[in-house]
Amino acid sequence: MGSLSNDSFAPLEPKEFSQESKKVIDFIADYYSNIEKYPVLSQVKPGYLKTELPDSAPYSPEPLEDILNDIDAKLMPGFTHWQSPNFFAYFQINASTAGFLGEMLCSGFNIINFCWLASPAATELEILVMDWMAKMLQLPPSFMSSGNGGGVLQSSTCEAIVCTLAAARDKVLAEVGYEAITKLVVYSSDQTHSSLQKGVKIVGIPPSNVRCLPTAFSEGFSLSPQTLEEAIRKDIMSGFIPLYLCGTVGTTACGAVDPIEKLGKVARKYNLWFHIDAAYAGSACICPEFRHYLDGVELADSLSMNPHKWFLTNMDCCCLWVKNPDSLIDSLSTNPEYLRNAPSESGNVVDYKDWQIPLSRRFRAMKLWVVIRRHGLATLRFHIRSDVKLATYFESKVAKDSRFEMVVPRKFALVCFRLKAGKDSKDDENLNKKLLQEVNESGNAFMTHAVVGGVYFIRCAVGSTLTEERHVEGLWKLIQEKATKVLLDAIV
Amino acid sequence: MGSLSNDSFAPLEPKEFSQESKKVIDFIADYYSNIEKYPVLSQVKPGYLKTELPDSAPYSPEPLEDILNDIDAKLMPGFTHWQSPNFFAYFQINASTAGFLGEMLCSGFNIINFCWLASPAATELEILVMDWMAKMLQLPPSFMSSGNGGGVLQSSTCEAIVCTLAAARDKVLAEVGYEAITKLVVYSSDQTHSSLQKGVKIVGIPPSNVRCLPTAFSEGFSLSPQTLEEAIRKDIMSGFIPLYLCGTVGTTACGAVDPIEKLGKVARKYNLWFHIDAAYAGSACICPEFRHYLDGVELADSLSMNPHKWFLTNMDCCCLWVKNPDSLIDSLSTNPEYLRNAPSESGNVVDYKDWQIPLSRRFRAMKLWVVIRRHGLATLRFHIRSDVKLATYFESKVAKDSRFEMVVPRKFALVCFRLKAGKDSKDDENLNKKLLQEVNESGNAFMTHAVVGGVYFIRCAVGSTLTEERHVEGLWKLIQEKATKVLLDAIV
Repeated sequence: MGSLSNDSFAPLEPKEFSQESKKVIDFIADYYSNIEKYPVLSQVKPGYLKTELPDSAPYSPEPLEDILNDIDAKLMPGFTHWQSPNFFAYFQINASTAGFLGEMLCSGFNIINFCWLASPAATELEILVMDWMAKMLQLPPSFMSSGNGGGVLQSSTCEAIVCTLAAARDKVLAEVGYEAITKLVVYSSDQTHSSLQKGVKIVGIPPSNVRCLPTAFSEGFSLSPQTLEEAIRKDIMSGFIPLYLCGTVGTTACGAVDPIEKLGKVARKYNLWFHIDAAYAGSACICPEFRHYLDGVELADSLSMNPHKWFLTNMDCCCLWVKNPDSLIDSLSTNPEYLRNAPSESGNVVDYKDWQIPLSRRFRAMKLWVVIRRHGLATLRFHIRSDVKLATYFESKVAKDSRFEMVVPRKFALVCFRLKAGKDSKDDENLNKKLLQEVNESGNAFMTHAVVGGVYFIRCAVGSTLTEERHVEGLWKLIQEKATKVLLDAIV
Repeated sequence: MGSLSNDSFAPLEPKEFSQESKKVIDFIADYYSNIEKYPVLSQVKPGYLKTELPDSAPYSPEPLEDILNDIDAKLMPGFTHWQSPNFFAYFQINASTAGFLGEMLCSGFNIINFCWLASPAATELEILVMDWMAKMLQLPPSFMSSGNGGGVLQSSTCEAIVCTLAAARDKVLAEVGYEAITKLVVYSSDQTHSSLQKGVKIVGIPPSNVRCLPTAFSEGFSLSPQTLEEAIRKDIMSGFIPLYLCGTVGTTACGAVDPIEKLGKVARKYNLWFHIDAAYAGSACICPEFRHYLDGVELADSLSMNPHKWFLTNMDCCCLWVKNPDSLIDSLSTNPEYLRNAPSESGNVVDYKDWQIPLSRRFRAMKLWVVIRRHGLATLRFHIRSDVKLATYFESKVAKDSRFEMVVPRKFALVCFRLKAGKDSKDDENLNKKLLQEVNESGNAFMTHAVVGGVYFIRCAVGSTLTEERHVEGLWKLIQEKATKVLLDAIV
């Protein structure tokens, strides 16, 4: 063959792999050491990067050093630093050493277990680690591999919702005929995450068939079983087919928890698929003092939660458990000749391709397994509790400053508060918008806002891995300082 | 606060991060050095892992060494080694040092750019790198940011298909009414990847509305524009609504290429959304000698290809370009209050959450950018060409052994061949099944099979990053040896 050999091209040569990887490790470790020096929320203007980097790919290889220098000089100013200890926005996305190690192993092996044969250990480790998680959350055996249920690791809550919606949809349509797809109805509260709306649109159910049922301050913005039942009855009377209910443990706006057991009973009564979205607060339920929020989970058909949020597992990792994996498989399986193999045809193995949207899949089980083993249940509980304690500490500061008020009681590590100084509600909103803007533009912290029951407020989501007491203290001082300025400006 | 401090709990402390990460780097480098010692295809039996690992999570932290030892002793036997140079199955999933570095940076920053504000540089780098890729593939400006089109990095071809199908579906249903969803028809060939069937099921179009049009040996198993047009006309006559056409550049079974330009003209004539799935062979189109397979791409509405297959980019990374991003946004956008922000509302920025299924997203642009810069266009072309050259070399071996035949002409780095010794076709199939089984059970190579035009054959997909000439030589020797045995057994 002769001319094929090119000694300089060895894109996975172990020695170079090791040397270059270690340079990047040092680069990332330095980043964590210096992360507080950057503004948390990027201060760049739209389109800034276009003038910083060439508009087409290089023809020849470039050294790693040049790439790292460009990250430092050109990309870093455009990053919003999710791993900053001063990041209190949205919900945190926990990185950890263990999560990173697991991600490296996942990427290093670069194994794709779409069917069991394609890498048996990857599939069997996923079954195992999903059972571990189920036990930590005290889920009933019906969600575990031993009880004919099972778990799968997906990319996101939206994927979990799309897959379970499709399963629920196809089960009903098989009975009533495909034309009825426009009659299927999905129930949630007005606090349910937007992933549900998106999932409904994706699976071809008319978006107008989502009932975003109203919640109220008096019930902590949780979904009322009575309201649900009334809506179901009304839909049935109007010729609709109630299909799916999404309950939430820890809503995005204010951390509300739906009454799982009571909703589950309504869902059973009307034969709805009942999904529990515990994306954020599911992690907390490994602690006995929070587990009661999942009471009634045995009435659900599926449950999802995101270790990539509050469980020290780097992106991405969403756990989905279902009671009846066959319902997923009925909707999502394909069986092309080029993937057929003896173990799959024996029916004795799990082929995860039929439990998710894509065919290909990353070896996420490796990551979650490393996270759990490296920390252990006790430390993971400590992790949750220390964030909750920091949030409680922040809450106590809010309570002591009469200019502020809590908007809803805190359940987990999300504190919803606001300045209450304005004369009418519009003033209040503007004042709090200004306060939030001042805090975020300082570069010293990043929080976001939400509106519930018509009330605009600021969300302080405690839980970034690097956040310590001093950061929460610093945040509170910053808020007080900016509040004084904003209130003064309002008078002038 | 006092009791909160726990000096031993610092899950992202830079020094420990660096030390432990480097241990894992050494572990992975050793793995690559020793990878040929493992059987490529795992030889374990279903359920093997259950007895090897505890059935519940540890209560206390475990040392990294124990975890790595368990990977070595307990998981490794259950791995099918996708990065082995003797992996010739399915299509390869390229790992590379550059891909790994990019993945580490992605995971280390752990940035989520669902909207521009959430990390401006991540979004702007993605726009830039998708334009770079578009230029390398010589896509028309209508797919680039400068031409009102644009690219997005997704997890998989299936995600790309779901998103484009939903966009096409909603555009038509907005005109004709939602009830028509059961009348929408999707066209493909019988060689199209199963992701299309799955995508159709997910978006709520009846699976029976997919026309898997027949292909033939005489046309290289490509979709005939005449066959397509006839099918469309028949559907229109029957009251169906032609919606979407999926053309493929490099099919999974045998590497067939659909005639893009001719299909594109039919699609335009009947106003179908035309998607090109170039998951595998798209990478080859950065070489001028392969680019002609994309001729006519200007007639398409969307195009996807997977750098995680043949472009040295570790999992996962799927490029999707669309001419009209608004059509994706119309179907996939959600705008909850808690994500609202000034730049998004200005309309001057890209919010990638509305171009994909999930809300959250990994920083994949970082990875693809590192891969491209670290190698450069010239080296990436060399990479493609050297794999094609190895496949050509293998093909020449097949041609010289009269017991074998090529099943279809080779276009890229996939060789489709078989033993032709049997008396009738059933004998042929059994013989080739036995040959494949013997090769795979030896542990020294892993190939898979397919069936086209009723013919069972063996697929040798050359392209694993570590594969060199000696591995292809070894594979051929192994095949010859096992063929002799299988043929002898058949006589006895």
